[in-house]
Amino acid sequence: QIDSARLWGSIHETAQFGATAKGGVRRLTLSNEDKQVRDWFRKACEDAGLEVHVDALGSQFGLRKGRDMSKLPVGIGSHLDTQPTGGKYDGILGTLGALEVIRTLNDAGIETEAPICVVNWTNEEGSRFAPAMMASAAYVGDFTTDDILSRKDIDGTTVGQALDSIGYRGDKPVGFQKLGCFVELHIEQGPILEAEGKTIGVVDSGQGVLWYDGKISGFESHAGSTPMPLRRDALATLSEIVLAMEAIAKKHGPNAVGTIGEAVIANPSRNVIPGEIAFTMDCRSADGAIMDALDRDLRAAIAEIAGRRKVEVKIDLVWRKPPTHFDPKLIAAVENAAKTLGYSSRRITSGAGHDACNLNTIMPAAMVFVPCKDGISHNELEDATQPDCAAGTNVLMHTVLAIAGV
Amino acid sequence: QIDSARLWGSIHETAQFGATAKGGVRRLTLSNEDKQVRDWFRKACEDAGLEVHVDALGSQFGLRKGRDMSKLPVGIGSHLDTQPTGGKYDGILGTLGALEVIRTLNDAGIETEAPICVVNWTNEEGSRFAPAMMASAAYVGDFTTDDILSRKDIDGTTVGQALDSIGYRGDKPVGFQKLGCFVELHIEQGPILEAEGKTIGVVDSGQGVLWYDGKISGFESHAGSTPMPLRRDALATLSEIVLAMEAIAKKHGPNAVGTIGEAVIANPSRNVIPGEIAFTMDCRSADGAIMDALDRDLRAAIAEIAGRRKVEVKIDLVWRKPPTHFDPKLIAAVENAAKTLGYSSRRITSGAGHDACNLNTIMPAAMVFVPCKDGISHNELEDATQPDCAAGTNVLMHTVLAIAGV
Ligand SMILES: NC(=O)NCCC(=O)O
Ligand SMILES: NC(=O)NCCC(=O)O
Repeated sequence: QIDSARLWGSIHETAQFGATAKGGVRRLTLSNEDKQVRDWFRKACEDAGLEVHVDALGSQFGLRKGRDMSKLPVGIGSHLDTQPTGGKYDGILGTLGALEVIRTLNDAGIETEAPICVVNWTNEEGSRFAPAMMASAAYVGDFTTDDILSRKDIDGTTVGQALDSIGYRGDKPVGFQKLGCFVELHIEQGPILEAEGKTIGVVDSGQGVLWYDGKISGFESHAGSTPMPLRRDALATLSEIVLAMEAIAKKHGPNAVGTIGEAVIANPSRNVIPGEIAFTMDCRSADGAIMDALDRDLRAAIAEIAGRRKVEVKIDLVWRKPPTHFDPKLIAAVENAAKTLGYSSRRITSGAGHDACNLNTIMPAAMVFVPCKDGISHNELEDATQPDCAAGTNVLMHTVLAIAGV
Repeated sequence: QIDSARLWGSIHETAQFGATAKGGVRRLTLSNEDKQVRDWFRKACEDAGLEVHVDALGSQFGLRKGRDMSKLPVGIGSHLDTQPTGGKYDGILGTLGALEVIRTLNDAGIETEAPICVVNWTNEEGSRFAPAMMASAAYVGDFTTDDILSRKDIDGTTVGQALDSIGYRGDKPVGFQKLGCFVELHIEQGPILEAEGKTIGVVDSGQGVLWYDGKISGFESHAGSTPMPLRRDALATLSEIVLAMEAIAKKHGPNAVGTIGEAVIANPSRNVIPGEIAFTMDCRSADGAIMDALDRDLRAAIAEIAGRRKVEVKIDLVWRKPPTHFDPKLIAAVENAAKTLGYSSRRITSGAGHDACNLNTIMPAAMVFVPCKDGISHNELEDATQPDCAAGTNVLMHTVLAIAGV
């Protein structure tokens, strides 16, 4: 059994780095707050006897030796960055839970056959730089390191510049640390476990993701003197797109969602009809065929709206992540650990993307979910209970012991 | 006849202050560019022999003596501030046209019975500070000077601070310069004169304006893991409001318009459902009963949308300007001047608000319109011809001479 109070203490101690007035955390990737939590995490890993290295994209790897160093390490961990209005658990539970597993094994004097590697992946959230799960995507070869280093945030700062500014451009090439498999603990970020009174979600699959950048070019004109029929209003165009996206996601539901999270009017003024808007779109489904249908329906709807309103709408697909099907043996290991420990559980699909979804494309991977209050996440009010966080960490530890061998 | 080339030269010389790449002007009220054009204007007025004073809200008044100084001056002028993506004529033609009238009278050695006062009103556009036509509204007593001085821009800077920062908080109290009447020359900012091939618009009325500040409070949550039916999406709510406003304006049309020009998502992120949006609304009609109907329909639509989507929407009416009916005698004077000079003309309603609309509430006022290309305004592509600008200025001069007496 892990030390529930120690885990809870770590979670609340690190929540100071970017703490918000509403009790959440604002810790955008590679920000100063991210540097603070990284420094804390490195020291904690070193204190736990891990050998810590940082790769060229800033991901932190802490290695615990195994008896048989010819075996690839079992990877565990998650991320420490948050959304602009994020919570205290999303990513953090999985990273500090992995640290707690190491501390517990140390205290109990348990040596494993295979080594264990704790990882804090850079930019899981995708809020400052696209795509989400950026560093693990480069790790599995979906993008080159140089491509990722050149990605820019909204102010034009590149990933490379941001890494340098906090001193976290590591000296190890991406992929230097080989892993044999990866297990990630996370809050569910949805309402199912809580509603059904289950403690553990055994994650067997994850939704695919489509991310688009969009731009609407209408025509700025005077709000008072331009008759309604002569307008080419970029905001009215966006409004139709938002509602079309909502209708399309519902049509393909319940196994589909669609969101417009960002929309910025260029040079806004009260008495000027909006002429130009930049926006982003996020569509998801656990079913690849539905993802294709979402893309097709969305493009058709946008073309119709743009034509009718005589405005130009450009759509670029900037990221496509297919649905994830986790490794059956690892899924069974998680399920078995939950059962052995006496926790109630159910199989579940992840609505969110996770680093484990990327890793699963080149190695066996799996995930452990615990309930979060009202399914709320990506919100400062995100919450989870101490017993549930401890239960998930126990399941993580027992899964690791089963895979790594004692 | 005024000097068409000199007028044209002044318009293009001052267009350097805030010139944009697309050939427009960005000269927000009380900005550094506004200071530059004010300095230019003060010097030009002084060079033309005017006695220049600045009031507590920064409006500039240049007085030309008349034979009978017991008579109240005839006021002429407009404004030199622009929209963020504004043009070279909106306001500028009326202010520099007024200066050109003075220069022409000087050259011709013409003395008038009543004095003439050239005015550059502060913050006509209303883009940086609300409401529009701010200084003339205080002049006629719609707002106190202190109230206006405390209005804030989006960065929290007050009108008072902005005036001090460019040295234009004048030593004269608002209203110090009494005027007997006011005549304002302006581009039409709509398509009618051009479409009908008329040179002069004799403005007999102006639309009333409703300005609102709005705020939507939904709930931020995860774009991937929040099922569509559980969302309280602030952007989807705004989208319905935008389209409802469009439908309501069309329903009450052709004599009604409605626009949402500003909308800002708080803490936007690609994979977060928008939780909070601040926005503004602008509704207009030349008919007071239609204005009331717009307000009523809009509030009902918003209440229905908010209730159905389980989000909170707050609406504050921050400005209500009733429709304007200009002074019949001054309207006739403008019409007569156009006829005498041989210009084609028609009566017209102003779609935009103007300082003359405010002044009309306490003194006789009227306006002269000239065509602008394709009716485009509040756009960097705003355009007007040299002959039309000269024609409008000639009509202004002959109207002034008729009122002031030679
Ligand atoms: N787990 C999580 O919130 N990941 C962020 C990436 C996404 O799914 O949008
Ligand atoms: N003339 C003009 O564009 N005024 C700005 C105020 C408004 O009508 O919105």
